[in-house]
Amino acid sequence: MSLENISQTKVFQGWHKQYTHQSTSLNCTMRFAIFLPPQASQDNPVSVLYWLSGLTCTDENFMQKAGAFRKAAELGIAIVAPDTSPRGEQVADDDGYDLGQGAGFYVNATETPWADHYRMYDYIVDELPALVEEHFPVSQARSISGHSMGGHGALVIGLRNTDRYCSISAFAPISNPINCPWGKKAFSSYLGHDRQQWQSYDACSLLNEKRSELPILVDQGAADSFLEEQLKLETLMSAAKKHNSPFELRMQPGYDHSYFFISSFIDDHLDFHAKPLSTQREE
Amino acid sequence: MSLENISQTKVFQGWHKQYTHQSTSLNCTMRFAIFLPPQASQDNPVSVLYWLSGLTCTDENFMQKAGAFRKAAELGIAIVAPDTSPRGEQVADDDGYDLGQGAGFYVNATETPWADHYRMYDYIVDELPALVEEHFPVSQARSISGHSMGGHGALVIGLRNTDRYCSISAFAPISNPINCPWGKKAFSSYLGHDRQQWQSYDACSLLNEKRSELPILVDQGAADSFLEEQLKLETLMSAAKKHNSPFELRMQPGYDHSYFFISSFIDDHLDFHAKPLSTQREE
Repeated sequence: MSLENISQTKVFQGWHKQYTHQSTSLNCTMRFAIFLPPQASQDNPVSVLYWLSGLTCTDENFMQKAGAFRKAAELGIAIVAPDTSPRGEQVADDDGYDLGQGAGFYVNATETPWADHYRMYDYIVDELPALVEEHFPVSQARSISGHSMGGHGALVIGLRNTDRYCSISAFAPISNPINCPWGKKAFSSYLGHDRQQWQSYDACSLLNEKRSELPILVDQGAADSFLEEQLKLETLMSAAKKHNSPFELRMQPGYDHSYFFISSFIDDHLDFHAKPLSTQREE
Repeated sequence: MSLENISQTKVFQGWHKQYTHQSTSLNCTMRFAIFLPPQASQDNPVSVLYWLSGLTCTDENFMQKAGAFRKAAELGIAIVAPDTSPRGEQVADDDGYDLGQGAGFYVNATETPWADHYRMYDYIVDELPALVEEHFPVSQARSISGHSMGGHGALVIGLRNTDRYCSISAFAPISNPINCPWGKKAFSSYLGHDRQQWQSYDACSLLNEKRSELPILVDQGAADSFLEEQLKLETLMSAAKKHNSPFELRMQPGYDHSYFFISSFIDDHLDFHAKPLSTQREE
């Protein structure tokens, strides 16, 4: 698997780099970004936080706006930010911002016209980590986080692959997509009517089914205009309680759904992931 | 003078807010942003760092990308980010990114068609601080900083108004605009052929003329592709040495001209300004 480096910029004594590559899962050219902390070297492979972004985003939003690199450099954690969907002229799309390109919802689509390219679940779980671990000085200690649609992705992917991640966090996740407008629209398009498929991509259903083995931290702005209709954090909290899953939900008074909210608490998330990541590396 | 609030977002327990107002200096509607740290109140007016952005920027670039609010909230410093030129359909413009809207160069234009609106020097020195100090819980302790074209603006405005600012800093400033392509193009358009006018907006000329009374900190990326042709930092250092002005230039190996560079060192600049700002407030 080959990578093309398209940018590299020094930041906090580490490097922010962007790459394109031909994705076998998604059947198109994809771009991702990586932050490599100054500690990373062949002799000192660092652990990786995968960040999944929300609707309309690319690899750039988090990297430019979250203010995460100061703390990541201090802790010696790499950050990988993929795009949010397959891209390109040959890739099916929709006029809405919440379906098609920029809105992959981290699922493997089964329905026409989406099934040819929209396999973001496989891309994030398997292809991207394999690529990152082949080309960069990183260990196999991985954690996963994300925002909104990406918070949904982080929860679902972490809960379904507890052997592949050390910890999960999310900002304002779409927690119960099978019961909110964004999720119903996306899942009915990508997955059709198979209710079992829908539940396999629903964080609340997964936590209702069994206990999470990974620690979970969620931050939610109490002034987020999407909270009640789209995010369903109370349902998530109830699901986590059902089997006593390790779960902390922090309601943050006055904060909204923006990257200003994420930047205010990203340091806490990096600190949260640092301990399980370092434990994993030592094993 | 009235302000219209167009956004407010909680960040680091403080607030990021955007406002529009009718500017008398610029004869058009202007937008600016302010970060108010959590300490700010009528009983506790806070000091203010004015941030001047570079070519093509608005009030948003620094506020979204610099990662400055964590430290500013810790220190209790407000940040004000104006736009980089007058704006609007009735405002003269040019096809180049380096002249006209988005490229005001912080001067008072004297030439047609620019003189009607392009009075950014007056706007930054007088109108904007008066507006900010009327409407927000801030003191008259001000410092000034900026990037590239805005670094030029910060140096020139600080050096010409030592009674109005406590300290000056800059990232990759256009230090000697009368001797670089960006500056010559802008100054010949805005100021015509009056060489004395040109020198009054040139940081190197001002430092060659007399000693700076304010401390100055400058960070410069050594891998900045604009360094040699456009920024002229060596000339600035020589000028500062001439009258032994208090001046620190830090060459940062490997860093470029981007906001990733700014974000890596903005905390140092806020710390640098904090001391003279607090001394001023106590006087």
